[in-house]
Amino acid sequence: MKTARLEAFSDGVFAVAITLLVLDLGVPTGSGSLITALADRWPSFAAFALSFVTIGIIWVNHHVLFGSVRRADRPLLFINLGLLMSVVLLPFSTSLFARYLVTGGDQSHIAAALFSGSLLLMALGFNAAYAWIGWHPELRRGENAQPTTVRALVRFGVGIGAYSVILGIAFVSALAVLILQGLVAVYYIVDRAAISAAELD
Amino acid sequence: MKTARLEAFSDGVFAVAITLLVLDLGVPTGSGSLITALADRWPSFAAFALSFVTIGIIWVNHHVLFGSVRRADRPLLFINLGLLMSVVLLPFSTSLFARYLVTGGDQSHIAAALFSGSLLLMALGFNAAYAWIGWHPELRRGENAQPTTVRALVRFGVGIGAYSVILGIAFVSALAVLILQGLVAVYYIVDRAAISAAELD
Amino acid sequence: MKTARLEAFSDGVFAVAITLLVLDLGVPTGSGSLITALADRWPSFAAFALSFVTIGIIWVNHHVLFGSVRRADRPLLFINLGLLMSVVLLPFSTSLFARYLVTGGDQSHIAAALFSGSLLLMALGFNAAYAWIGWHPELRRGENAQPTTVRALVRFGVGIGAYSVILGIAFVSALAVLILQGLVAVYYIVDRAAISAAELD
Amino acid sequence: MKTARLEAFSDGVFAVAITLLVLDLGVPTGSGSLITALADRWPSFAAFALSFVTIGIIWVNHHVLFGSVRRADRPLLFINLGLLMSVVLLPFSTSLFARYLVTGGDQSHIAAALFSGSLLLMALGFNAAYAWIGWHPELRRGENAQPTTVRALVRFGVGIGAYSVILGIAFVSALAVLILQGLVAVYYIVDRAAISAAELD
Repeated sequence: MKTARLEAFSDGVFAVAITLLVLDLGVPTGSGSLITALADRWPSFAAFALSFVTIGIIWVNHHVLFGSVRRADRPLLFINLGLLMSVVLLPFSTSLFARYLVTGGDQSHIAAALFSGSLLLMALGFNAAYAWIGWHPELRRGENAQPTTVRALVRFGVGIGAYSVILGIAFVSALAVLILQGLVAVYYIVDRAAISAAELD
Repeated sequence: MKTARLEAFSDGVFAVAITLLVLDLGVPTGSGSLITALADRWPSFAAFALSFVTIGIIWVNHHVLFGSVRRADRPLLFINLGLLMSVVLLPFSTSLFARYLVTGGDQSHIAAALFSGSLLLMALGFNAAYAWIGWHPELRRGENAQPTTVRALVRFGVGIGAYSVILGIAFVSALAVLILQGLVAVYYIVDRAAISAAELD
Repeated sequence: MKTARLEAFSDGVFAVAITLLVLDLGVPTGSGSLITALADRWPSFAAFALSFVTIGIIWVNHHVLFGSVRRADRPLLFINLGLLMSVVLLPFSTSLFARYLVTGGDQSHIAAALFSGSLLLMALGFNAAYAWIGWHPELRRGENAQPTTVRALVRFGVGIGAYSVILGIAFVSALAVLILQGLVAVYYIVDRAAISAAELD
Repeated sequence: MKTARLEAFSDGVFAVAITLLVLDLGVPTGSGSLITALADRWPSFAAFALSFVTIGIIWVNHHVLFGSVRRADRPLLFINLGLLMSVVLLPFSTSLFARYLVTGGDQSHIAAALFSGSLLLMALGFNAAYAWIGWHPELRRGENAQPTTVRALVRFGVGIGAYSVILGIAFVSALAVLILQGLVAVYYIVDRAAISAAELD
């Protein structure tokens, strides 16, 4: 099975999910100061920016990873579907996070944990695709493609470890989750290796 | 008429419909326990997961089926449009199902029946495309493509039969519909033959 | 300028607009009979079906028409953009039509006229693209492509004439608009010539 | 890294964002005169048309610009992501602008300034992509591609200058912003050079 339509469908889901994030930026309806009303909504803007960049990074990685895939087998189709489900959930978990970010107490901790869990799920989905492709060189373009077990395992550890730690921190501070997830996103943008690692062969 | 744009348009509709499902996962607005509020909404999450996976399976099958099509004639374009209409209706029927799943009584039965009917419609649409392509080997890639009447008829019977039975069960229990549709989805993911059956030639 | 991205972008807009139509099918929230509540909403379902099929037909025609285009010049890009704007407006005018279809009186007439005007706009957009391509054989694939002035003019007359007449009828009866637009849609699906006329060369 | 998927993903985001603009055209719910109710909403229609055309122009330019790109490097991927973020923000800033356009006073000034800022951001994003591609001939198709520094700098000045001036005018009159942005859009549609300037090589 060729990957052209898998990529087209995935691009479509990424594009719709990343654009639906804007629906959570509601327009104030009151007659008071517009600046104050928008400033009060800073959690929505911060969460929007964070989720937009995170989906963007996952898309770039998806792009790079599937660039080395020659054909998709059935498990890969369904692993990819699982990854896309985690992407589709993000507008919801982002909205939840933004809504409770500054309420404090249990509500903000749980919302932050669910948001972190949503990102962790996305990382797990991507890493599952990465591992499956890594372990099945016959799906890849390179004629002499080799299984990439150890590298994949290490990558599993780092990315998923970071997201898991932040998930734990959510129960201490929702604001810390916002800052740390932002730092993770910046790291992925800045560090060349983090992305080129998705290049198999 | 080549199938590239038919596939691109279909991929777009599948991608938008599967992503719009998330809009039904509303964020709680109350100030009580967030966990309780989300737990109370479990029908929305269950229906979301079920419909996401079902659209995903139909997309995979669509992908496989049209992989063997060389050119689309006018009836196939409109059969495909009918299939896409059933896909587009799914966010609505999913939302309806989730809203009334636990209310019990007539309302939940009717909502479950309409949801099952929506999935049945999708199965009918896909099978119509399958049968049309099966009966018109001149549309297919294979030079020696043969009509696949009997196989197509049998397939018609199995898939549509299952969805029809579940539609009947809706009038007994909405919850049973959720469980049975989930089992059907798992079956389609696990059983290799269920999908490779969509491969013509 | 090649037409691959013009087609991809157009397919995206068609796919999103046709899928957004579902957002107007709201789920009833009352605790009364669900069947009655849904039956009361029949205008939404009828308008949904009509607009879905109409966008689908325009997409099929767009597919056929641009299949004969080799390269797009700047005016064609902007004519296509105008056509897409009329497509994007359709979820709004459909919703408006469904909301006022059965209220009777001036409101229903104006809503029906705006809906008809929205479809007329789409027809004008498509015919403008058709005429531009017809009058500029250098944009087409065929080496001996000839301008198709007369045919284009006739086509202009028929399609736009029908939509204009229905627009006039809107001021008499909104229901008549629903029925007549449905008949126009059925005609376009059934009549082979109506679509193959979009094939230039 | 080839640009096919970058273009497909960008097309998807452009298509979804341009179509989501329609969601801000709410259907009146009152029982009074429909014409009056719709006429009262003219700011929504005007802002819709303006943003639709502006996204359309940016898409045409994106199309032309990336037509000369052979491969995308990592910075270009992220510059493009930034441009797409400004596109995704537009349905929000358009809605904000339409909501406060006729309220007068500070609110309308701030809303108009944010809308202008949103368009300025889009211009900055596009020009950043233009400059990056201009300064890196190795990313381009042409074998003898040359850096295009001066031209790019001038272009930077003109487009961004215009949007900046309009941003300043927002604090005087929101209506003037609507008219001036409309004139800028018309200029980009009519002036051949404005677009062909995006053609590198």
